[in-house]
Amino acid sequence: MGVNDKLVETTVSTEPVFSGKVISLQIDMVKLPDGTTATREIVKHPGAVAVLAVHEGRLLLVDQFRQAMGRCELEIPAGKLEKGEDPAEAAVRELQEETGYRCDKLTHLHSFYTSPGFADEIIHLYLAEQLSAGEMSPDEDEFLEVQEVTLEEALNLIAEGRIADAKTILAVYIWQLWTVRGSAGAGV
Amino acid sequence: MGVNDKLVETTVSTEPVFSGKVISLQIDMVKLPDGTTATREIVKHPGAVAVLAVHEGRLLLVDQFRQAMGRCELEIPAGKLEKGEDPAEAAVRELQEETGYRCDKLTHLHSFYTSPGFADEIIHLYLAEQLSAGEMSPDEDEFLEVQEVTLEEALNLIAEGRIADAKTILAVYIWQLWTVRGSAGAGV
Repeated sequence: MGVNDKLVETTVSTEPVFSGKVISLQIDMVKLPDGTTATREIVKHPGAVAVLAVHEGRLLLVDQFRQAMGRCELEIPAGKLEKGEDPAEAAVRELQEETGYRCDKLTHLHSFYTSPGFADEIIHLYLAEQLSAGEMSPDEDEFLEVQEVTLEEALNLIAEGRIADAKTILAVYIWQLWTVRGSAGAGV
Repeated sequence: MGVNDKLVETTVSTEPVFSGKVISLQIDMVKLPDGTTATREIVKHPGAVAVLAVHEGRLLLVDQFRQAMGRCELEIPAGKLEKGEDPAEAAVRELQEETGYRCDKLTHLHSFYTSPGFADEIIHLYLAEQLSAGEMSPDEDEFLEVQEVTLEEALNLIAEGRIADAKTILAVYIWQLWTVRGSAGAGV
């Protein structure tokens, strides 16, 4: 099941539209498999990391206002990659900044695109283990509160919509799958 | 665990930057909890649906070129909401257009934000059951191929990166969890 050549589109031109602090936007013209053309609106993003961290049976979550949602949401610790930053180092950094916790063991779980229809954002998801508590140090325009929840509480928060983003729901399902199987951290 | 008033940001102003076929972009100025201001780059999206459909033990996937990724990727059937469209109707429509399958039973599983840091895209994920095969009818600028894979194949496709987006990885984990538990479609 390799790449499917019959479906490939080729870029004819790229028009930059906007370049901001976090994202940029461009309109690509592409040549379709039948030879006709179409436009694609593409958001460019630096990429991000997210961290599945369970301390004494409780998942670390961060409560944060999300302007795009118009409300607060509980998410696993996460943040953008800094320029040239190694994703594993970014995961350790974001976990410490947002929750105060340091970790001595880090395992890569998945790297996934969040919105492949219009954005190139990729999130590198890590499992952080061997955690020790410490001081938070969020960015200056970041206002956060940490919550630590059991698996049952996390599932209820999903049902209530207080957890409502793809990466966090995915992380809770991964944790639940390990729990159901009786293995901790293995087999993913 | 209700809304956390201490973290709320309020919108001071909104500057439209771009309005396209699929997405639009605006820059919001927000007042932070400490009274200072910050800008937020926000992509507006009409919302989308995605469908977890298993036919005779095999997950329905769609192979499609993704310009944002620069390559083809296998995803569960999905697509944007049309203006004013009911998400459940959109799920039935997208499943039929992209795979040819019709379904007689549809269950809402989750609605989640894909990129709450910069986009308001929400995906409504449904389980489609009681499937019957038929003819595909993709949009005119959409070139697709359907694949039907076992759970083991789906997990291998994730490991290989041929499945590489959040909604599809989440759907595979949900399916795996049901399989491990021995229940089909229940308990989510």
